[in-house]
Amino acid sequence: MSDEITPQEPEAEEDAFAPRAEVLAAIRAALDADDRAALNAALDDLHAADIADILEQAGPEDRRRFVALWGDDFDGEVLVELDERVRDEVTGLLANDVLVDAVKELDTDDQVYLVEDLDPPERDAVLSQLDAADRIALEQSLDYEEETAGRLMQRSVVTAPLHWTVGEVIDFMRASTDLPDDFYEVIIIDPAVHPIGTVALGRIMSHPRATPLSEIMNEDFRTLRVTDEQEDVAYAFNQYNLVSAPVVDGEGRLVGVITIDDAMEVLEDEAEEDMKLLAGIGDETLSDRVLSIAKARFPWLAVNMVNAIIAALVISQFEDNIQAIVALAVLMPIVASMGGNAGTQTLTVAVRALATRDLTSANASRIFMRETAVGLINGAGFAIIAGVVSFVWFGNPLLSVVLGVAMIVNMLVAGMFGILVPLVIEKAGADPALASGTFVTTVTDVVGFFSFLGLAGIVLL
Amino acid sequence: MSDEITPQEPEAEEDAFAPRAEVLAAIRAALDADDRAALNAALDDLHAADIADILEQAGPEDRRRFVALWGDDFDGEVLVELDERVRDEVTGLLANDVLVDAVKELDTDDQVYLVEDLDPPERDAVLSQLDAADRIALEQSLDYEEETAGRLMQRSVVTAPLHWTVGEVIDFMRASTDLPDDFYEVIIIDPAVHPIGTVALGRIMSHPRATPLSEIMNEDFRTLRVTDEQEDVAYAFNQYNLVSAPVVDGEGRLVGVITIDDAMEVLEDEAEEDMKLLAGIGDETLSDRVLSIAKARFPWLAVNMVNAIIAALVISQFEDNIQAIVALAVLMPIVASMGGNAGTQTLTVAVRALATRDLTSANASRIFMRETAVGLINGAGFAIIAGVVSFVWFGNPLLSVVLGVAMIVNMLVAGMFGILVPLVIEKAGADPALASGTFVTTVTDVVGFFSFLGLAGIVLL
Repeated sequence: MSDEITPQEPEAEEDAFAPRAEVLAAIRAALDADDRAALNAALDDLHAADIADILEQAGPEDRRRFVALWGDDFDGEVLVELDERVRDEVTGLLANDVLVDAVKELDTDDQVYLVEDLDPPERDAVLSQLDAADRIALEQSLDYEEETAGRLMQRSVVTAPLHWTVGEVIDFMRASTDLPDDFYEVIIIDPAVHPIGTVALGRIMSHPRATPLSEIMNEDFRTLRVTDEQEDVAYAFNQYNLVSAPVVDGEGRLVGVITIDDAMEVLEDEAEEDMKLLAGIGDETLSDRVLSIAKARFPWLAVNMVNAIIAALVISQFEDNIQAIVALAVLMPIVASMGGNAGTQTLTVAVRALATRDLTSANASRIFMRETAVGLINGAGFAIIAGVVSFVWFGNPLLSVVLGVAMIVNMLVAGMFGILVPLVIEKAGADPALASGTFVTTVTDVVGFFSFLGLAGIVLL
Repeated sequence: MSDEITPQEPEAEEDAFAPRAEVLAAIRAALDADDRAALNAALDDLHAADIADILEQAGPEDRRRFVALWGDDFDGEVLVELDERVRDEVTGLLANDVLVDAVKELDTDDQVYLVEDLDPPERDAVLSQLDAADRIALEQSLDYEEETAGRLMQRSVVTAPLHWTVGEVIDFMRASTDLPDDFYEVIIIDPAVHPIGTVALGRIMSHPRATPLSEIMNEDFRTLRVTDEQEDVAYAFNQYNLVSAPVVDGEGRLVGVITIDDAMEVLEDEAEEDMKLLAGIGDETLSDRVLSIAKARFPWLAVNMVNAIIAALVISQFEDNIQAIVALAVLMPIVASMGGNAGTQTLTVAVRALATRDLTSANASRIFMRETAVGLINGAGFAIIAGVVSFVWFGNPLLSVVLGVAMIVNMLVAGMFGILVPLVIEKAGADPALASGTFVTTVTDVVGFFSFLGLAGIVLL
């Protein structure tokens, strides 16, 4: 928290949250003039997250000049806000002592977040220059698995023994010199460091000094374990409206605390990950380079290629039918496309509901029945529409019937597989968003082409 | 915050956050025995969000029996956690006085959230039975536009004048009887009720009583305006790691405060909305009924049907080519499918980056160039693979060349339109996730079929 006097001016702009054009122009001018004071002045009003955004959106050459000019003043918070590729680039440009100073300023959870992604030589350089206590604590955090509560947590925790009063905890806080930057509750611990209650700061402040903490503490709180996966952590915060939660080790001893801002970031990341997996994108960021993006997307496209070849193989079984009635080739993508779309709708609902734990074994069979019914109803609707369109177009009533029946079959199958595929993948212990899109589209392509072309062969030839 | 003595037992289960099977069994037994005490006992340890989940996942008949049995004990927090359709059902089942009591218990932001969705008769019943002051305040909140900061905010704010000391603010809080449940900072206001600073509670508590608030307040804070859209609010919390933020009216006067838990929910909702829009799903929840779901998805499928018919029209222009070389019908879906997939990849990245404001006018042209290059590179890669596959399959080198060229063209176009379409939709002031999927697939289908079948006509016939 800063005590600088930078008065807050209410702004009537369209988007008050984006860095303004003047700021960008001032930074540009400072870079061009190689004027460090001017750069610092331009950055003065900006939040670290905005500076990080500016760096991410700049070209590599501007980034290099920016880092060179800002130099020793580089703010560790900016590193925390950068996405991984740009951060790698920037930490590579920073002198080791600047990097160490930047890391030292940070809260312990941010230190872990930053150091875990550093290249081994930089990581060792940073670790070796920290105080022994900080270094050991940081190394302990890094011993926890990635993407667990142990990695997310802040190790500095404000605790109090059960026998303290409101006055004692306030006196303790007044005497402390190393309180964390952000904390919202005091955790009450027993002599064996097990958390036994929490007291929100607002609750402490609204009671007289003599009040024992045991009288105002909340005993119905939730603890997280260091081994909890970060998506479970985010779920708990979201589900139970937590603001902070104690983290305990295998013996139930308090080892840290996770605050809602970290949980919010995980929640956002997990939703983004699902959205990307559904679209066949892996772990890429906007600032990645052309070749690494092309390479990252290639495997997903390759899986789709296999799917497309399977669909082509199905079509090739019916070459004679197409040769006889070329209208089949014209109409067949309609059946496949509608099935694919209906399947994707169901699939997305299912993946999302699994992520938010709204789809569970308690209602899976009811949701399956519902999606099947939805597929049937919309299948029937579009069977009629497609039948009418094809009759107007080709004037062949039997062809319209074949198209309609294939449509119903494919949209019914789309609804069923749209829900079954993610359920099965989840049951198998994998992320239901992963590759389920390709599975479902393969099914709807194969069923769509097979039912339409096969039925046409029986009815029309 | 509850003071009940319900000791926290560390659980070693696979999923410590989901209600356990025993709880569900106990609720079931209580319903079957019509035993209200047993039901209350079963629900005692559960968070309102868990009870809401159980209600959502139950069938309508169980839900009715649950509400009838729980009756007067119904917890208003559970209503807040329910999704809209089930909440409508439940409020319809509750007696008006139970509903009013449930609403009275809530914080003002939750009251607004609940009352805004009530049917007019229920809404009037609730409003008429609130205290005049509460009613007027609630009606004022409802005057703000939906999905704005004015609707999200909590109206009870803990404020202090600039001349107060730490001791005075603590004394004030000790004397207050109506402090909000959750607050993390005190907002310093001038005599005209303009916010001029904030002080985190932890900061107040760690300073001696005599410290003036002006010495420890943070003047570099962010204010929100009542008219700010909720997605901008969520963005500000996420970007600037806010925990709470003052909300001001048109004259810059403090009217409320928004806390991070509300922002987190909005962030989650907005990400979910984008994910669903990309898949062609509107505003449906898992507990909606079959017919309303089928109806909600119908328009999206209809748009896709139009797209599919346009693609069919393109194919029909080349019926003669297909009649002459039926392999064209077999291979053509491969070109369309790969283009559609590559386009969806780019589109999803673009929609997400626009939502997180990582894609701006500062880097749009560079990202466009990059996506074009990625399309070209992967297009070339899959042109070779598809060419080899088709040569092995059909033994026609010219056909392979045609397939390869069409693949490159379509994947290049996919990359370009995958980024252009959402940018244009955003520029036009609409949600870039809306319908952009269909636009892009229409383009890749048309370009895919046209380039492959058209080129085949020129080269092979």
